[in-house]
Amino acid sequence: MARRVRVYLPELHAGRSELPREQAHYVSVVHRLGNGDRFTAFDPESCLECDAQIVEVNRARVACLLEAPRAADIRGLGVTLLQGAAKGDRLDSVVRAATALGVDALRIVLTERSVAHPREMKVERLRAIAIEAARQCGRGDVPRLEGPEALAACLPSFGAVRALKLCLTPAAHEPLANLIRDWTPGTPVVLLVGPEGGLSAGEEEAARASGFAEAALGPLTLRTELAALAALACFAGRLPGRVDTTPDVEE
Amino acid sequence: MARRVRVYLPELHAGRSELPREQAHYVSVVHRLGNGDRFTAFDPESCLECDAQIVEVNRARVACLLEAPRAADIRGLGVTLLQGAAKGDRLDSVVRAATALGVDALRIVLTERSVAHPREMKVERLRAIAIEAARQCGRGDVPRLEGPEALAACLPSFGAVRALKLCLTPAAHEPLANLIRDWTPGTPVVLLVGPEGGLSAGEEEAARASGFAEAALGPLTLRTELAALAALACFAGRLPGRVDTTPDVEE
Repeated sequence: MARRVRVYLPELHAGRSELPREQAHYVSVVHRLGNGDRFTAFDPESCLECDAQIVEVNRARVACLLEAPRAADIRGLGVTLLQGAAKGDRLDSVVRAATALGVDALRIVLTERSVAHPREMKVERLRAIAIEAARQCGRGDVPRLEGPEALAACLPSFGAVRALKLCLTPAAHEPLANLIRDWTPGTPVVLLVGPEGGLSAGEEEAARASGFAEAALGPLTLRTELAALAALACFAGRLPGRVDTTPDVEE
Repeated sequence: MARRVRVYLPELHAGRSELPREQAHYVSVVHRLGNGDRFTAFDPESCLECDAQIVEVNRARVACLLEAPRAADIRGLGVTLLQGAAKGDRLDSVVRAATALGVDALRIVLTERSVAHPREMKVERLRAIAIEAARQCGRGDVPRLEGPEALAACLPSFGAVRALKLCLTPAAHEPLANLIRDWTPGTPVVLLVGPEGGLSAGEEEAARASGFAEAALGPLTLRTELAALAALACFAGRLPGRVDTTPDVEE
Protein backbone atom coordinates (compact mmCIF):
# COMPACT_ATOMS: atom_id res chain seq x y z
CA MET A 1 0.00 0.00 0.00
CA ALA A 2 1.45 3.33 -1.04
CA ARG A 3 1.68 5.77 1.81
CA ARG A 4 2.43 9.40 1.45
CA VAL A 5 4.54 10.87 4.19
CA ARG A 6 3.80 14.53 4.92
CA VAL A 7 6.54 16.72 6.27
CA TYR A 8 6.09 20.21 7.69
CA LEU A 9 8.59 22.50 6.01
CA PRO A 10 8.22 26.22 6.52
CA GLU A 11 9.15 28.64 3.73
CA LEU A 12 8.79 26.18 0.87
CA HIS A 13 10.71 26.94 -2.29
CA ALA A 14 11.61 24.86 -5.33
CA GLY A 15 15.10 23.41 -5.51
CA ARG A 16 17.55 21.59 -3.28
CA SER A 17 16.99 21.94 0.43
CA GLU A 18 18.51 20.46 3.54
CA LEU A 19 15.88 19.39 6.04
CA PRO A 20 15.95 20.84 9.55
CA ARG A 21 17.11 18.34 12.15
CA GLU A 22 13.64 17.40 13.40
CA GLN A 23 12.26 16.80 9.91
CA ALA A 24 15.39 14.89 8.89
CA HIS A 25 14.86 12.57 11.84
CA TYR A 26 11.21 12.21 10.97
CA VAL A 27 11.77 11.09 7.38
CA SER A 28 14.94 9.04 7.84
CA VAL A 29 14.38 7.46 11.25
CA VAL A 30 10.62 7.44 11.93
CA HIS A 31 9.65 6.59 8.34
CA ARG A 32 12.99 5.08 7.22
CA LEU A 33 12.88 6.89 3.91
CA GLY A 34 16.09 6.85 1.92
CA ASN A 35 17.66 8.12 -1.25
CA GLY A 36 15.12 8.49 -4.07
CA ASP A 37 12.07 8.23 -1.78
CA ARG A 38 9.36 10.81 -2.19
CA PHE A 39 7.23 12.69 0.29
CA THR A 40 4.94 15.71 0.43
CA ALA A 41 6.35 18.85 2.00
CA PHE A 42 3.78 21.28 3.30
CA ASP A 43 3.69 24.70 4.87
CA PRO A 44 0.23 25.14 6.32
CA GLU A 45 0.86 28.71 7.38
CA SER A 46 1.22 29.79 3.75
CA CYS A 47 -1.17 27.06 2.49
CA LEU A 48 1.48 25.65 0.14
CA GLU A 49 2.67 22.15 -0.49
CA CYS A 50 4.98 20.42 -2.95
CA ASP A 51 6.34 17.05 -3.91
CA ALA A 52 9.83 16.29 -2.71
CA GLN A 53 12.43 13.64 -3.34
CA ILE A 54 15.29 12.68 -1.07
CA VAL A 55 18.61 13.06 -2.83
CA GLU A 56 21.06 12.50 0.01
CA VAL A 57 20.96 10.86 3.42
CA ASN A 58 24.09 11.23 5.48
CA ARG A 59 23.71 10.31 9.15
CA ALA A 60 21.46 12.95 10.63
CA ARG A 61 21.49 15.05 7.46
CA VAL A 62 18.84 14.69 4.78
CA ALA A 63 18.84 16.70 1.57
CA CYS A 64 15.95 16.75 -0.86
CA LEU A 65 14.84 18.27 -4.10
CA LEU A 66 11.56 20.19 -3.90
CA GLU A 67 9.31 20.70 -6.90
CA ALA A 68 7.45 23.95 -7.42
CA PRO A 69 5.07 24.67 -4.52
CA ARG A 70 1.36 24.62 -5.31
CA ALA A 71 -1.61 25.96 -3.37
CA ALA A 72 -2.89 23.32 -0.96
CA ASP A 73 -6.45 22.52 -1.90
CA ILE A 74 -7.87 21.40 1.42
CA ARG A 75 -9.21 24.26 3.47
CA GLY A 76 -11.40 24.66 6.52
CA LEU A 77 -15.16 24.41 6.93
CA GLY A 78 -15.82 28.10 7.47
CA VAL A 79 -16.28 27.65 11.22
CA THR A 80 -14.86 29.90 13.93
CA LEU A 81 -14.85 28.24 17.34
CA LEU A 82 -15.15 30.48 20.39
CA GLN A 83 -13.88 28.12 23.06
CA GLY A 84 -14.24 28.88 26.74
CA ALA A 85 -10.79 28.77 28.34
CA ALA A 86 -10.18 25.26 29.62
CA LYS A 87 -7.34 23.63 31.47
CA GLY A 88 -4.17 23.19 29.45
CA ASP A 89 -4.40 19.62 28.25
CA ARG A 90 -8.06 20.05 27.32
CA LEU A 91 -7.17 23.02 25.17
CA ASP A 92 -4.47 20.90 23.53
CA SER A 93 -6.99 18.26 22.58
CA VAL A 94 -9.48 20.85 21.34
CA VAL A 95 -6.79 22.34 19.06
CA ARG A 96 -5.75 18.89 17.82
CA ALA A 97 -9.25 17.63 17.09
CA ALA A 98 -10.63 20.93 15.82
CA THR A 99 -7.78 21.17 13.31
CA ALA A 100 -8.51 17.67 12.02
CA LEU A 101 -12.22 18.46 11.81
CA GLY A 102 -11.56 21.56 9.72
CA VAL A 103 -12.10 24.52 12.03
CA ASP A 104 -10.94 27.81 10.47
CA ALA A 105 -10.24 29.82 13.57
CA LEU A 106 -10.09 29.09 17.25
CA ARG A 107 -10.53 31.98 19.65
CA ILE A 108 -10.05 31.28 23.33
CA VAL A 109 -12.51 33.26 25.41
CA LEU A 110 -12.43 33.89 29.15
CA THR A 111 -15.81 33.31 30.72
CA GLU A 112 -17.29 33.68 34.19
CA ARG A 113 -16.73 30.03 34.96
CA SER A 114 -13.38 29.62 33.26
CA VAL A 115 -11.18 27.82 35.74
CA ALA A 116 -8.14 28.37 33.60
CA HIS A 117 -7.16 31.99 33.06
CA PRO A 118 -4.10 31.85 30.91
CA ARG A 119 -2.45 35.24 31.23
CA GLU A 120 -0.69 34.67 28.04
CA MET A 121 -1.72 31.95 25.68
CA LYS A 122 0.98 29.51 24.92
CA VAL A 123 0.38 30.32 21.30
CA GLU A 124 3.59 28.80 20.03
CA ARG A 125 2.81 25.53 21.75
CA LEU A 126 -0.77 25.45 20.42
CA ARG A 127 0.46 26.36 16.95
CA ALA A 128 2.86 23.43 17.01
CA ILE A 129 -0.01 21.13 17.99
CA ALA A 130 -2.13 22.52 15.15
CA ILE A 131 0.67 22.05 12.60
CA GLU A 132 1.23 18.48 13.75
CA ALA A 133 -2.53 17.81 13.52
CA ALA A 134 -2.60 19.36 10.03
CA ARG A 135 0.24 17.06 8.98
CA GLN A 136 -1.58 13.99 10.26
CA CYS A 137 -4.97 14.80 8.81
CA GLY A 138 -3.72 15.95 5.41
CA ARG A 139 -4.86 19.50 5.86
CA GLY A 140 -3.09 22.17 3.80
CA ASP A 141 -3.66 25.05 6.19
CA VAL A 142 -3.87 25.58 9.93
CA PRO A 143 -6.59 27.30 11.92
CA ARG A 144 -5.91 30.80 13.18
CA LEU A 145 -5.36 30.74 16.92
CA GLU A 146 -6.44 33.82 18.83
CA GLY A 147 -6.99 34.99 22.37
CA PRO A 148 -7.43 34.82 25.19
CA GLU A 149 -10.00 37.59 25.31
CA ALA A 150 -12.96 38.21 27.59
CA LEU A 151 -16.18 36.75 26.22
CA ALA A 152 -18.19 39.61 27.68
CA ALA A 153 -16.04 42.08 25.75
CA CYS A 154 -16.11 40.34 22.38
CA LEU A 155 -19.68 39.00 22.34
CA PRO A 156 -21.40 42.31 21.42
CA SER A 157 -19.19 42.66 18.35
CA PHE A 158 -20.76 39.48 16.93
CA GLY A 159 -24.15 41.20 16.77
CA ALA A 160 -23.18 42.69 13.39
CA VAL A 161 -21.42 39.57 12.09
CA ARG A 162 -23.31 37.88 9.28
CA ALA A 163 -22.84 34.21 10.07
CA LEU A 164 -24.72 31.23 11.40
CA LYS A 165 -24.12 31.86 15.11
CA LEU A 166 -24.60 28.93 17.46
CA CYS A 167 -24.13 28.52 21.18
CA LEU A 168 -24.00 25.01 22.65
CA THR A 169 -26.42 24.86 25.56
CA PRO A 170 -27.13 21.64 27.45
CA ALA A 171 -30.84 22.38 27.84
CA ALA A 172 -31.41 23.70 24.31
CA HIS A 173 -34.53 22.37 22.63
CA GLU A 174 -33.18 22.52 19.13
CA PRO A 175 -30.74 19.82 18.05
CA LEU A 176 -27.62 21.20 16.37
CA ALA A 177 -28.29 19.14 13.24
CA ASN A 178 -31.61 20.92 12.72
CA LEU A 179 -30.01 24.33 12.99
CA ILE A 180 -27.38 23.54 10.38
CA ARG A 181 -29.72 21.78 7.96
CA ASP A 182 -29.44 24.58 5.41
CA TRP A 183 -25.76 25.23 6.00
CA THR A 184 -23.52 24.79 3.01
CA PRO A 185 -19.79 24.16 3.50
CA GLY A 186 -17.80 27.36 3.59
CA THR A 187 -20.71 29.51 4.78
CA PRO A 188 -19.47 31.34 7.87
CA VAL A 189 -20.33 29.86 11.24
CA VAL A 190 -19.45 31.06 14.73
CA LEU A 191 -19.74 28.36 17.36
CA LEU A 192 -19.60 29.24 21.06
CA VAL A 193 -18.70 26.49 23.53
CA GLY A 194 -18.47 27.14 27.27
CA PRO A 195 -15.65 26.08 29.58
CA GLU A 196 -15.71 23.18 32.08
CA GLY A 197 -18.59 24.60 34.10
CA GLY A 198 -20.58 25.85 31.12
CA LEU A 199 -21.67 29.38 30.31
CA SER A 200 -23.53 31.38 32.94
CA ALA A 201 -27.17 32.31 32.41
CA GLY A 202 -26.04 35.89 31.79
CA GLU A 203 -23.56 34.80 29.15
CA GLU A 204 -26.19 32.70 27.41
CA GLU A 205 -28.50 35.72 27.44
CA ALA A 206 -25.76 37.95 26.01
CA ALA A 207 -25.10 35.38 23.30
CA ARG A 208 -28.79 35.32 22.37
CA ALA A 209 -28.76 39.12 22.23
CA SER A 210 -25.89 38.93 19.72
CA GLY A 211 -27.84 36.54 17.51
CA PHE A 212 -26.56 33.18 18.72
CA ALA A 213 -29.10 30.35 18.53
CA GLU A 214 -28.94 27.72 21.27
CA ALA A 215 -28.02 24.30 19.99
CA ALA A 216 -28.17 20.89 21.67
CA LEU A 217 -26.05 17.79 21.22
CA GLY A 218 -28.41 15.44 23.00
CA PRO A 219 -29.41 15.07 26.64
CA LEU A 220 -26.04 14.02 28.06
CA THR A 221 -23.48 16.37 29.62
CA LEU A 222 -20.40 16.56 27.42
CA ARG A 223 -17.03 17.66 28.73
CA THR A 224 -16.06 20.95 27.13
CA GLU A 225 -13.45 19.45 24.80
CA LEU A 226 -15.86 16.73 23.68
CA ALA A 227 -18.69 19.23 23.15
CA ALA A 228 -16.52 21.39 20.89
CA LEU A 229 -15.41 18.57 18.68
CA ALA A 230 -18.81 16.87 18.64
CA ALA A 231 -20.29 20.09 17.30
CA LEU A 232 -17.56 20.43 14.69
CA ALA A 233 -18.12 16.80 13.70
CA CYS A 234 -21.72 17.65 12.80
CA PHE A 235 -20.33 20.04 10.19
CA ALA A 236 -17.61 17.66 8.96
CA GLY A 237 -20.28 14.97 8.61
CA ARG A 238 -21.90 17.11 5.93
CA LEU A 239 -18.87 16.82 3.64
CA PRO A 240 -17.90 14.05 1.21
CA GLY A 241 -14.66 12.15 1.67
CA ARG A 242 -11.40 12.92 -0.02
CA VAL A 243 -10.95 12.46 -3.74
CA ASP A 244 -7.35 11.34 -3.54
CA THR A 245 -7.51 7.84 -2.11
CA THR A 246 -3.82 7.51 -1.30
CA PRO A 247 -3.92 6.97 2.45
CA ASP A 248 -1.88 9.25 4.60
CA VAL A 249 0.18 7.70 7.29
CA GLU A 250 -1.58 7.75 10.61
CA GLU A 251 0.67 7.33 13.59
CA MET B 1 -25.78 27.27 41.38
CA ALA B 2 -27.26 23.98 42.46
CA ARG B 3 -25.12 21.07 41.43
CA ARG B 4 -26.16 17.49 41.62
CA VAL B 5 -23.38 15.10 42.51
CA ARG B 6 -23.76 11.65 40.96
CA VAL B 7 -22.30 8.66 42.74
CA TYR B 8 -21.92 5.18 41.29
CA LEU B 9 -23.40 2.69 43.73
CA PRO B 10 -23.89 -0.88 42.59
CA GLU B 11 -26.84 -2.90 43.86
CA LEU B 12 -29.03 0.04 44.80
CA HIS B 13 -31.69 -0.57 47.41
CA ALA B 14 -33.81 1.74 49.53
CA GLY B 15 -32.75 2.30 53.11
CA ARG B 16 -29.62 3.08 55.03
CA SER B 17 -26.37 2.22 53.35
CA GLU B 18 -22.72 2.72 54.12
CA LEU B 19 -20.79 3.92 51.10
CA PRO B 20 -17.83 1.90 49.86
CA ARG B 21 -14.50 3.55 50.61
CA GLU B 22 -14.00 5.04 47.15
CA GLN B 23 -17.48 6.57 47.01
CA ALA B 24 -17.17 7.82 50.59
CA HIS B 25 -13.98 9.65 49.61
CA TYR B 26 -15.65 11.01 46.51
CA VAL B 27 -18.59 12.60 48.34
CA SER B 28 -16.86 13.72 51.52
CA VAL B 29 -13.44 14.77 50.24
CA VAL B 30 -13.76 15.53 46.51
CA HIS B 31 -17.16 17.22 46.84
CA ARG B 32 -17.00 18.08 50.55
CA LEU B 33 -20.56 16.97 51.15
CA GLY B 34 -21.59 16.56 54.76
CA ASN B 35 -24.49 15.55 56.94
CA GLY B 36 -27.84 16.31 55.33
CA ASP B 37 -26.42 16.89 51.84
CA ARG B 38 -28.12 15.14 48.95
CA PHE B 39 -26.77 13.40 45.87
CA THR B 40 -27.95 11.04 43.16
CA ALA B 41 -26.86 7.43 43.48
CA PHE B 42 -26.89 5.47 40.24
CA ASP B 43 -26.24 1.95 39.09
CA PRO B 44 -25.87 2.10 35.33
CA GLU B 45 -25.55 -1.66 34.98
CA SER B 46 -29.12 -2.14 36.20
CA CYS B 47 -30.26 1.27 34.83
CA LEU B 48 -31.46 2.41 38.24
CA GLU B 49 -30.93 5.59 40.18
CA CYS B 50 -32.23 7.14 43.36
CA ASP B 51 -31.99 10.20 45.53
CA ALA B 52 -29.79 9.88 48.57
CA GLN B 53 -29.08 11.91 51.66
CA ILE B 54 -26.00 11.74 53.82
CA VAL B 55 -26.89 10.91 57.42
CA GLU B 56 -23.48 10.34 58.96
CA VAL B 57 -19.93 11.33 58.15
CA ASN B 58 -17.30 9.88 60.41
CA ARG B 59 -13.74 10.19 59.17
CA ALA B 60 -13.53 7.93 56.14
CA ARG B 61 -17.00 6.48 56.71
CA VAL B 62 -20.11 7.93 55.08
CA ALA B 63 -23.58 6.56 55.68
CA CYS B 64 -26.59 7.63 53.68
CA LEU B 65 -30.27 7.03 53.33
CA LEU B 66 -31.37 5.93 49.87
CA GLU B 67 -34.87 6.53 48.55
CA ALA B 68 -36.62 3.94 46.39
CA PRO B 69 -34.67 3.31 43.18
CA ARG B 70 -36.35 4.38 39.94
CA ALA B 71 -35.60 3.45 36.35
CA ALA B 72 -33.02 5.83 34.89
CA ASP B 73 -34.63 7.63 32.00
CA ILE B 74 -31.64 8.41 29.85
CA ARG B 75 -30.73 5.61 27.48
CA GLY B 76 -28.50 5.21 24.45
CA LEU B 77 -29.01 6.28 20.85
CA GLY B 78 -29.55 2.83 19.40
CA VAL B 79 -26.04 2.72 17.93
CA THR B 80 -23.67 -0.25 18.07
CA LEU B 81 -20.07 0.73 17.36
CA LEU B 82 -17.81 -1.88 15.78
CA GLN B 83 -14.44 -0.38 16.59
CA GLY B 84 -11.24 -1.70 15.03
CA ALA B 85 -8.85 -2.69 17.82
CA ALA B 86 -6.65 0.29 18.61
CA LYS B 87 -3.82 0.85 21.02
CA GLY B 88 -4.82 0.89 24.67
CA ASP B 89 -5.15 4.54 25.47
CA ARG B 90 -7.05 5.18 22.24
CA LEU B 91 -9.55 2.51 23.18
CA ASP B 92 -9.91 4.19 26.57
CA SER B 93 -10.80 7.48 24.96
CA VAL B 94 -13.21 5.80 22.53
CA VAL B 95 -15.03 4.16 25.47
CA ARG B 96 -15.10 7.44 27.42
CA ALA B 97 -16.38 9.59 24.56
CA ALA B 98 -18.70 6.98 23.07
CA THR B 99 -20.39 6.53 26.45
CA ALA B 100 -20.97 10.28 26.76
CA LEU B 101 -22.28 10.44 23.20
CA GLY B 102 -24.81 7.69 23.90
CA VAL B 103 -23.47 4.57 22.17
CA ASP B 104 -25.43 1.44 23.15
CA ALA B 105 -22.82 -1.21 22.52
CA LEU B 106 -19.15 -1.19 21.71
CA ARG B 107 -17.71 -4.28 20.06
CA ILE B 108 -13.96 -4.36 19.55
CA VAL B 109 -13.10 -6.04 16.26
CA LEU B 110 -9.72 -7.32 15.13
CA THR B 111 -8.96 -6.25 11.60
CA GLU B 112 -6.18 -6.86 9.11
CA ARG B 113 -4.43 -3.65 10.06
CA SER B 114 -5.08 -3.75 13.78
CA VAL B 115 -1.76 -3.00 15.42
CA ALA B 116 -3.13 -3.88 18.82
CA HIS B 117 -4.24 -7.47 19.24
CA PRO B 118 -5.46 -7.69 22.80
CA ARG B 119 -5.54 -11.39 23.64
CA GLU B 120 -7.94 -10.68 26.36
CA MET B 121 -9.80 -7.42 26.57
CA LYS B 122 -9.27 -5.55 29.75
CA VAL B 123 -13.01 -5.55 30.12
CA GLU B 124 -13.03 -4.61 33.79
CA ARG B 125 -10.84 -1.63 33.10
CA LEU B 126 -12.97 -0.47 30.17
CA ARG B 127 -16.14 -1.02 32.17
CA ALA B 128 -14.78 1.21 34.94
CA ILE B 129 -14.03 3.90 32.36
CA ALA B 130 -17.57 3.59 30.96
CA ILE B 131 -19.13 3.84 34.42
CA GLU B 132 -17.08 6.91 35.23
CA ALA B 133 -18.08 8.48 31.90
CA ALA B 134 -21.73 7.62 32.59
CA ARG B 135 -21.46 9.33 35.98
CA GLN B 136 -19.99 12.47 34.45
CA CYS B 137 -22.41 12.76 31.55
CA GLY B 138 -25.55 11.95 33.53
CA ARG B 139 -26.27 8.75 31.68
CA GLY B 140 -28.36 6.15 33.49
CA ASP B 141 -26.96 3.10 31.73
CA VAL B 142 -23.62 1.99 30.32
CA PRO B 143 -22.85 0.63 26.89
CA ARG B 144 -22.33 -3.10 26.53
CA LEU B 145 -18.65 -3.82 25.95
CA GLU B 146 -17.87 -6.85 23.81
CA GLY B 147 -14.96 -8.46 22.03
CA PRO B 148 -12.38 -8.70 20.82
CA GLU B 149 -13.58 -10.75 17.89
CA ALA B 150 -12.34 -11.06 14.32
CA LEU B 151 -14.08 -8.64 11.97
CA ALA B 152 -13.90 -11.19 9.15
CA ALA B 153 -15.76 -13.70 11.30
CA CYS B 154 -18.52 -11.42 12.56
CA LEU B 155 -19.13 -9.29 9.45
CA PRO B 156 -21.21 -11.89 7.52
CA SER B 157 -23.63 -12.20 10.44
CA PHE B 158 -24.60 -8.55 9.94
CA GLY B 159 -26.02 -9.38 6.51
CA ALA B 160 -29.29 -10.44 8.16
CA VAL B 161 -29.32 -7.62 10.74
CA ARG B 162 -32.02 -5.06 10.09
CA ALA B 163 -30.32 -1.81 10.95
CA LEU B 164 -28.84 1.25 9.34
CA LYS B 165 -25.36 -0.15 8.68
CA LEU B 166 -22.59 2.35 8.05
CA CYS B 167 -18.87 1.98 7.46
CA LEU B 168 -16.63 5.03 7.79
CA THR B 169 -14.48 5.23 4.67
CA PRO B 170 -12.11 8.14 4.03
CA ALA B 171 -12.86 8.23 0.30
CA ALA B 172 -16.63 7.73 0.56
CA HIS B 173 -18.66 10.06 -1.64
CA GLU B 174 -21.65 10.20 0.65
CA PRO B 175 -21.42 12.40 3.75
CA LEU B 176 -22.54 10.63 6.92
CA ALA B 177 -25.16 13.31 7.59
CA ASN B 178 -26.90 12.50 4.29
CA LEU B 179 -27.05 8.81 5.11
CA ILE B 180 -28.65 9.40 8.50
CA ARG B 181 -31.08 12.07 7.33
CA ASP B 182 -34.07 9.76 7.85
CA TRP B 183 -32.73 8.18 11.01
CA THR B 184 -34.88 8.60 14.10
CA PRO B 185 -33.34 8.23 17.57
CA GLY B 186 -33.51 4.68 18.83
CA THR B 187 -33.63 3.12 15.36
CA PRO B 188 -30.85 0.52 15.29
CA VAL B 189 -27.55 1.56 13.73
CA VAL B 190 -24.35 -0.42 13.32
CA LEU B 191 -21.31 1.76 12.74
CA LEU B 192 -18.02 0.24 11.61
CA VAL B 193 -14.82 2.21 12.22
CA GLY B 194 -11.41 0.86 11.22
CA PRO B 195 -8.29 0.80 13.38
CA GLU B 196 -5.26 3.15 13.11
CA GLY B 197 -4.43 2.11 9.55
CA GLY B 198 -8.02 1.92 8.33
CA LEU B 199 -9.89 -1.05 6.92
CA SER B 200 -8.35 -2.98 4.04
CA ALA B 201 -9.99 -2.93 0.60
CA GLY B 202 -11.14 -6.50 1.23
CA GLU B 203 -12.74 -5.57 4.55
CA GLU B 204 -14.52 -2.62 2.95
CA GLU B 205 -15.78 -4.98 0.24
CA ALA B 206 -16.98 -7.52 2.83
CA ALA B 207 -18.75 -4.74 4.72
CA ARG B 208 -20.53 -3.64 1.53
CA ALA B 209 -21.55 -7.26 0.93
CA SER B 210 -23.15 -7.30 4.40
CA GLY B 211 -25.14 -4.17 3.63
CA PHE B 212 -22.90 -1.47 5.07
CA ALA B 213 -23.04 1.86 3.26
CA GLU B 214 -19.81 3.85 3.06
CA ALA B 215 -19.97 7.13 4.92
CA ALA B 216 -17.63 10.13 4.90
CA LEU B 217 -16.78 12.67 7.55
CA GLY B 218 -15.15 15.14 5.22
CA PRO B 219 -11.89 15.12 3.30
CA LEU B 220 -9.46 15.07 6.21
CA THR B 221 -7.91 11.95 7.73
CA LEU B 222 -9.22 11.41 11.24
CA ARG B 223 -7.42 9.33 13.81
CA THR B 224 -9.47 6.24 14.62
CA GLU B 225 -10.64 7.47 18.02
CA LEU B 226 -11.64 10.84 16.59
CA ALA B 227 -13.45 9.22 13.65
CA ALA B 228 -15.54 7.04 15.97
CA LEU B 229 -16.66 9.87 18.16
CA ALA B 230 -17.15 12.30 15.29
CA ALA B 231 -19.55 9.80 13.72
CA LEU B 232 -21.40 9.29 17.00
CA ALA B 233 -21.61 13.07 17.40
CA CYS B 234 -23.56 13.27 14.14
CA PHE B 235 -26.22 11.12 15.80
CA ALA B 236 -26.14 12.97 19.13
CA GLY B 237 -26.48 16.23 17.20
CA ARG B 238 -29.91 15.04 16.09
CA LEU B 239 -31.24 15.03 19.67
CA PRO B 240 -32.62 17.85 21.80
CA GLY B 241 -30.91 18.80 25.05
CA ARG B 242 -31.86 17.61 28.49
CA VAL B 243 -35.12 18.64 30.09
CA ASP B 244 -33.73 18.85 33.61
CA THR B 245 -31.59 21.94 33.64
CA THR B 246 -29.82 21.27 36.91
CA PRO B 247 -26.21 21.15 35.79
CA ASP B 248 -24.23 18.08 36.66
CA VAL B 249 -20.82 18.62 38.09
CA GLU B 250 -18.16 18.39 35.47
CA GLU B 251 -14.68 17.75 36.74
